[in-house]
Amino acid sequence: MSVIVVGSTALDSIKTPKSSNPRLLGGSASHACVAASFFAKTNLVGIVGNDFPSRYLNLYQRHKIGLEALQRVPGKTFHWSGEYEVNMNNRRTLATELGVFETFTPELPESLRDVPYVLLANIAPELQHHVLDQIRKPKFVIADTMDLWLNIALESLLKLLRRVDAFVLNDSEARQLTKEDNLPAALRKIHRLGPKYVIVKKGEHGSVLSSPAGLFVAPAFPLRKVVDPTGAGDSFVGGLIGYLASRTGSIDSNLRRAIVHGSAVASFCCEGFGLNRITKTTRPAIAERVRALEKMTCF
Amino acid sequence: MSVIVVGSTALDSIKTPKSSNPRLLGGSASHACVAASFFAKTNLVGIVGNDFPSRYLNLYQRHKIGLEALQRVPGKTFHWSGEYEVNMNNRRTLATELGVFETFTPELPESLRDVPYVLLANIAPELQHHVLDQIRKPKFVIADTMDLWLNIALESLLKLLRRVDAFVLNDSEARQLTKEDNLPAALRKIHRLGPKYVIVKKGEHGSVLSSPAGLFVAPAFPLRKVVDPTGAGDSFVGGLIGYLASRTGSIDSNLRRAIVHGSAVASFCCEGFGLNRITKTTRPAIAERVRALEKMTCF
Repeated sequence: MSVIVVGSTALDSIKTPKSSNPRLLGGSASHACVAASFFAKTNLVGIVGNDFPSRYLNLYQRHKIGLEALQRVPGKTFHWSGEYEVNMNNRRTLATELGVFETFTPELPESLRDVPYVLLANIAPELQHHVLDQIRKPKFVIADTMDLWLNIALESLLKLLRRVDAFVLNDSEARQLTKEDNLPAALRKIHRLGPKYVIVKKGEHGSVLSSPAGLFVAPAFPLRKVVDPTGAGDSFVGGLIGYLASRTGSIDSNLRRAIVHGSAVASFCCEGFGLNRITKTTRPAIAERVRALEKMTCF
Repeated sequence: MSVIVVGSTALDSIKTPKSSNPRLLGGSASHACVAASFFAKTNLVGIVGNDFPSRYLNLYQRHKIGLEALQRVPGKTFHWSGEYEVNMNNRRTLATELGVFETFTPELPESLRDVPYVLLANIAPELQHHVLDQIRKPKFVIADTMDLWLNIALESLLKLLRRVDAFVLNDSEARQLTKEDNLPAALRKIHRLGPKYVIVKKGEHGSVLSSPAGLFVAPAFPLRKVVDPTGAGDSFVGGLIGYLASRTGSIDSNLRRAIVHGSAVASFCCEGFGLNRITKTTRPAIAERVRALEKMTCF
């Protein structure tokens, strides 16, 4: 079955102590769509300006990402620039230029309103609502977010949580949202806000799923070298929903393996700048990392 | 088979924002011995002063901990006092009074020199060497440490690493020792220092074993409430070696389950001040948490 992803489509300029990488393809929707595309037909809902390089459109197309709902308008593409410290754990934003994103109102063509798997990737909660409003009968809706929306759009985000099956956030966001340092306590509070499934991303420490069946603790794939973690969380949730859409059977019976597939895909994202490495991976290479994760966790 | 543990035997005074707990039984050897005692006959190598409460000797005896190598001498027992912040993650040392520890020279009675499982719990590396020198033919030697010894006794610790099968340290210590932020890279460097098995403790994020068979990623048991994490690392390695000593078969075939048993035992340690909670647990209750960890990780 197919997937629809709304999120940001951006040009990212990423500095590290060793290199400068201007105008990479980035944004939550770009990362999530490419990750999902390894498993299922994926459709992108986003907006780019007329400065958007055609090589990036070609990249989407090589991954067979549906672009019917990608708006191309006059103006500048959303541009983010950031700088990582030497250990690649801390980053700071140097500049954010919204460009055409400022007036983005996603409209789904008729053909996309019946897509069953919906990923509301990191973007303003109002836009997540607006896309969800247009989907007729979603089978599974998962939302991601970031600290910014907890700070400036909490009310809209809380409303969204009552409308989604699953919610993904990172550990510091979970603490911020619940005022709980203890993860199991935070998870309980987040369930009370609506979602049946809550997934907390912990970076190199993996992720935790909380569901009615209990907790699932998944490792991150251990990497000898992290080149650029930008988009790893987006790739994780993209891989996760792509895998789910590729399976028959219930969400409950597939979600754990979906999370592990998300971890495996996200590991490729971290091995190159922007989408450089992940676009070169293959389904068998992903499956190999999933098997490696199985070996690393069985006892 | 039986276990010998050398480490500190202390009185711990632990403050939290909510309570003050003076003169609890503490020290790396106390925590490790109690944890190991659930699985195997365990012998304590340590020293206490004549202020050491008899109720704590009774506690050791209830756990059938061999006290032949526990020196009782005139003077004050080692006393540590510390204070935890509200989230129970950060602690600061308020006072350390070495007392009788200052002149500690562990001497093993003849009966303990053939004990096959040796835990060199956190203590000065010179004392770890001194105990290891007295063991005739150890089957398995594991050493723990702390940042203090990396700072003031690195040379002796590095010598020790060439003499042990396994080395346990926490993630910040692994970074400090190797100057590597990346965990797989740090693990490789630590193997080059000697140990066949390296186990990195990551607190609530669990632990990672690196061995010739590859990596094993183990979760911590998720707790709704952490009362006092003091001694959790000592309990972890104590449970680990106790479980190993209780098994037939090779170290390689048992080490993963030993780590999970260590995690389960350590979780009880965190649920009470000092040894209050762990002394009330049972082998079946530990087994239940091991089964829960199995359920939490299988996919």
